[in-house]
Amino acid sequence: MRDSLAMKILREHLVSAPDSLRPGREILIRVDHTLTQDATGTMAYLQFEAMGVPRVRTRRSVSYVDHNMLQTGYENMDDHVFLQTFAAKHGVYFSRPGNGICHQVHLERFSEPGLVLLGSDSHTPTCGGAGMLAIGAGGLDVAVAMAGGPFGLPMPKIVGVHLKGRRQPWVAAKDVILEMLRRLTVKGGVGKIFEYYGEGVRDLTVPERATICNMGAELGATTSIFPSDEITRAYFRKQNRETEWRELGPDPDAEYDEHIEIDLSALEPLVAQPHSPDNVVRVRDIEGLPLDQVCIGSCTNSSFHDLAIAAHVLKGRRVASRVSMTLTPGSRQVFATIARNGILADLIAAGARVLEAACGPCIGMGQAPKSGGISLRSFNRNFEGRSGTPDAKVYLCSPETAAVSALRGVLTDPRDYEGAYVTQREPDVYDTNDEGMILPPSDHPEQVEVVRGPNIKPLPTRGPLESVIRGRVLLKVGDNITTDHIMPAGSKILPLRSNIPAISEYVFVRVDPKFPERAKQYGGGIIVAGSNYGQGSSREHAALAPMYLGVKAVIAKSFARIHRANLINFGILPLMFTEEADYNRISQDDELVIEDVPGQLQRGSRIEVSTSSGQRLGTVCEVSPRQRDILLSGGLLNHVKINHGGGKGTEDAAVHLSTATMIATNGQFRPGRPKVEEVRV
Amino acid sequence: MRDSLAMKILREHLVSAPDSLRPGREILIRVDHTLTQDATGTMAYLQFEAMGVPRVRTRRSVSYVDHNMLQTGYENMDDHVFLQTFAAKHGVYFSRPGNGICHQVHLERFSEPGLVLLGSDSHTPTCGGAGMLAIGAGGLDVAVAMAGGPFGLPMPKIVGVHLKGRRQPWVAAKDVILEMLRRLTVKGGVGKIFEYYGEGVRDLTVPERATICNMGAELGATTSIFPSDEITRAYFRKQNRETEWRELGPDPDAEYDEHIEIDLSALEPLVAQPHSPDNVVRVRDIEGLPLDQVCIGSCTNSSFHDLAIAAHVLKGRRVASRVSMTLTPGSRQVFATIARNGILADLIAAGARVLEAACGPCIGMGQAPKSGGISLRSFNRNFEGRSGTPDAKVYLCSPETAAVSALRGVLTDPRDYEGAYVTQREPDVYDTNDEGMILPPSDHPEQVEVVRGPNIKPLPTRGPLESVIRGRVLLKVGDNITTDHIMPAGSKILPLRSNIPAISEYVFVRVDPKFPERAKQYGGGIIVAGSNYGQGSSREHAALAPMYLGVKAVIAKSFARIHRANLINFGILPLMFTEEADYNRISQDDELVIEDVPGQLQRGSRIEVSTSSGQRLGTVCEVSPRQRDILLSGGLLNHVKINHGGGKGTEDAAVHLSTATMIATNGQFRPGRPKVEEVRV
Repeated sequence: MRDSLAMKILREHLVSAPDSLRPGREILIRVDHTLTQDATGTMAYLQFEAMGVPRVRTRRSVSYVDHNMLQTGYENMDDHVFLQTFAAKHGVYFSRPGNGICHQVHLERFSEPGLVLLGSDSHTPTCGGAGMLAIGAGGLDVAVAMAGGPFGLPMPKIVGVHLKGRRQPWVAAKDVILEMLRRLTVKGGVGKIFEYYGEGVRDLTVPERATICNMGAELGATTSIFPSDEITRAYFRKQNRETEWRELGPDPDAEYDEHIEIDLSALEPLVAQPHSPDNVVRVRDIEGLPLDQVCIGSCTNSSFHDLAIAAHVLKGRRVASRVSMTLTPGSRQVFATIARNGILADLIAAGARVLEAACGPCIGMGQAPKSGGISLRSFNRNFEGRSGTPDAKVYLCSPETAAVSALRGVLTDPRDYEGAYVTQREPDVYDTNDEGMILPPSDHPEQVEVVRGPNIKPLPTRGPLESVIRGRVLLKVGDNITTDHIMPAGSKILPLRSNIPAISEYVFVRVDPKFPERAKQYGGGIIVAGSNYGQGSSREHAALAPMYLGVKAVIAKSFARIHRANLINFGILPLMFTEEADYNRISQDDELVIEDVPGQLQRGSRIEVSTSSGQRLGTVCEVSPRQRDILLSGGLLNHVKINHGGGKGTEDAAVHLSTATMIATNGQFRPGRPKVEEVRV
Repeated sequence: MRDSLAMKILREHLVSAPDSLRPGREILIRVDHTLTQDATGTMAYLQFEAMGVPRVRTRRSVSYVDHNMLQTGYENMDDHVFLQTFAAKHGVYFSRPGNGICHQVHLERFSEPGLVLLGSDSHTPTCGGAGMLAIGAGGLDVAVAMAGGPFGLPMPKIVGVHLKGRRQPWVAAKDVILEMLRRLTVKGGVGKIFEYYGEGVRDLTVPERATICNMGAELGATTSIFPSDEITRAYFRKQNRETEWRELGPDPDAEYDEHIEIDLSALEPLVAQPHSPDNVVRVRDIEGLPLDQVCIGSCTNSSFHDLAIAAHVLKGRRVASRVSMTLTPGSRQVFATIARNGILADLIAAGARVLEAACGPCIGMGQAPKSGGISLRSFNRNFEGRSGTPDAKVYLCSPETAAVSALRGVLTDPRDYEGAYVTQREPDVYDTNDEGMILPPSDHPEQVEVVRGPNIKPLPTRGPLESVIRGRVLLKVGDNITTDHIMPAGSKILPLRSNIPAISEYVFVRVDPKFPERAKQYGGGIIVAGSNYGQGSSREHAALAPMYLGVKAVIAKSFARIHRANLINFGILPLMFTEEADYNRISQDDELVIEDVPGQLQRGSRIEVSTSSGQRLGTVCEVSPRQRDILLSGGLLNHVKINHGGGKGTEDAAVHLSTATMIATNGQFRPGRPKVEEVRV
């Protein structure tokens, strides 16, 4: 065999036909680990519950809390208590609030080379730094995986990234992935797995590799992965779990679908300018930019070294008076470790503001910059408005660049720092005792009562697919509508993620605040959109909340991949115009009719839509046979319940589920125009 | 002389006539220090600016940032940058966000025995722990003090609190003040200064004394004070500023207006139950109560020992799995100190959630408990809803009780802890270097530009007092309306403190959401209320925002003292019914007329109000001559501008101000019924 590492893991986990392992085909893979965070987890567990499977069937499922930790109202802690009690009852490990960001903690405590991790967060690929195949997905997909079902995705291309040489001092792992973004753009990884190999890999610690894999999400990649080698082994030893390590890499002369080469020794400190992670230039090119805020942390750069380098730079000095500097440890392990060895004391003494081990400012959950402020962050995303300040300008860089710039008050190439670079990249000892912090599930689940505060509303469901869809065009939008347009996040809306009736009031609120009212007035309807509809994060609430409001179909020029999959999962028809010009023939408030929907779906991908004036519009519904069955059932949850005996609370349901789902597909997409776009899964 | 310590300081600072030093008379005192925090400071500085005095005339004025630090939108950092640049320009020291809670930092770095501190926060009395006479007031009073004017208040009674004996292990300073609250209730300190003396004082460190003074605010006291002795000297030595210490205490055989005695050796751990700080019982009486949250910190209990005792209890263990535990260091000094000596590492390892050095959960700024949750807090207030969760139940206790209870998961008498009590109450070394963290004012103020983001709206003003007030009764409310009813706080509204047009939309929002709309529709009007109107915090926004909405008068059965003073400062007539039964003769929406307002005011305290049906209602406006002049000018700001040459930007303005204000008063209230109530200044 001349398998890449990614191919090896896929082959080991494949449950669809062997010949499905070709780019573009749908593959189904077995899932070993799942992770959820609190903003997506509450809904994923309600979905799992609706399937009627009493205990998770995965090797390891972990529920983390890292998004909603400001707790400006009762909603957050209601969610935390629900998640904790649910986990205890249903076989899930629970990482307590304060224990850290899901990706960092999973890397430290649970990652296993060669296994498959499915997580309801787009930065799940972080664990690729430890040789794991880690993929982000919607919460419902994760719920199905917890119930024992496989995960389906189009077989990605596998891109070999050859790393050569060694970085110069003050050049960081972050600069490697910024270089990738500079070359490939945020669409450059769509439908691809990036597999890093070569002698340059030895220049990177596991947390550094994880930084690169984490931010592969910004390339739009399915995932990224590094081999598991002696460096990985040393990391596992420090994590006190060397027994979970195994060596794993590509075959010699492994074949890749595409090739990239990066000479680490030629890299310089880079920075992504507003408002896209691929708007990358050399720090040197724009140095001197005055800064209002500097933030180190987030799931991208919050490991030991990231904070240690900041302390090294700031020790005995002060953050520039014009700068507000925040530091977020990625986990309690990192926090306790730097608290024990003096690094934290140096940072506090220097005037840095130390935040909880949580996502925090990266998701606009606090620390919004001043109006029009310039914020330099070691984070992974700098979309407009994401910081919580609509007109702030966010730049992304390495912790090295961030720390030196915080000291000077202006963007500074860290190579200009007067002192030496630190050589110790890992601490001598990590605090690996997480007893009582990561709570195992209960041995007596029957005694556990799941606590549901008023913020935990029952899971909304929809009935089977209608035979005729007749509805008004509730909204007509243009190109590149993001999931942030459809279902905004931020500190005010994110706490409502487990309360669909409440969060639905915010659907399209920044596009048309009257949308929810109108949808309810007309008993639902249809959305018409331009191209690349649903780009952005993987949040399934952008499908679930419209479903709750009665949206039955979205007719667009094209869709982003994950959102399209989410629409299907929630029983909303994703229809593409056969002729793009037809987009102009529909107006908001038009009445549309789709006759015999099940019949049309079963006959093929062409779906005819009529206007009230009798005009006929051609559309296609590009789905795999599995997805077609899901739509016919009125969504994935109905599909599971109808076909696989779910809802009865039997252990057998999970087995049926995975077997039946395998049978339901031949692993192939139906033919159709290649118009599925994808960015930032 | 047989002066108490408080009398000595008042005598030294008196600018009104010497015979005004009798309970009930109005005294005017010179102010040495001022402090502001960010929620009250932005407005205080805009008011200072409106007076036209270029640099503060105090010995030391400090601007702190501790309230609005979550930064869920641009508003907070806009405020911070305004405060920082304003301070640099106008002679104020600026304590950067992250440097700590105003009261804790002022105690550590600036307190001076024998001086007078005026602060725009009700817990300003904290510095009484270092022998300072520290009083909370509205922001406008603080602005006048910064401009060089004196502070006026009714001469309080001075109560001697004789402390005997020594506390048993696990009994805290917090239990001393909880015992005071148990005995005296939240109204027991109204119009009083509590002066602690006796051999028991030696049993208390300066931060412990500060805890007692801080929470004297909950007694409704004007302030509380401890002598400055060798223990104070040792504290100043550790603060590296022994030269600022001086010995100061009462004369032997000092006379007090009232006497209280507390035998420290007989005290037990106490706890205040929901929803009032005086609802105090022994921990023993209700032990076993299951807890959802435990919080240590706030301006009351966030000094070194408070966190050290928690670490001592939790070291090598875990916070109970049902409890979310937060820890807030009171200052960067405390934070850096515990980070340096391992205490912080023990706390993090134990699973405590470490928050920024800020007010945080104490003011509902994050960490709201779950619905109906039980939260045990080492804080000073447990009013209903203050935590951010309307139906949460908050209990107040010592850090000792909090820590042991967090370990067990249920309310526990800390004397049941199996280990020994710690004996070290202060660290060997404090981190006293605050260079670059507390920024001195600029030496070149002309080069400093004050930055005003869009959240900094100009100060609203009102014209001179109307000759006839004619207006509709916009709202009729009952007894005990708090400033929280009038102008709510919390994480959503507090960020608008520097934006009166925006925050005015929330006036009375929880009583009648249509109030602002109605006030604007009718061009302002009159409020009718029952007794004790305006109790609660000192926030002047409860007067300023109604003024902005056109409220000209409040007619009530009685007023809380501070709010009444704030109404006068903002030119709103505080009128009391001569006959309480007249309250029933007025309905909401009635039209009322007050003829010849200036004439009536000048003639005496009786003010006649007529209804549109021709009925006449008798009211009184109890004011000192100084306050009468303020009302006649249309508020304190107009008063200063009209009478004292303010607004011209001259240094002389401040001198005129203080001299003229002295002349304007004879230090006496006009006669009137003793109906001014006061709680929780």
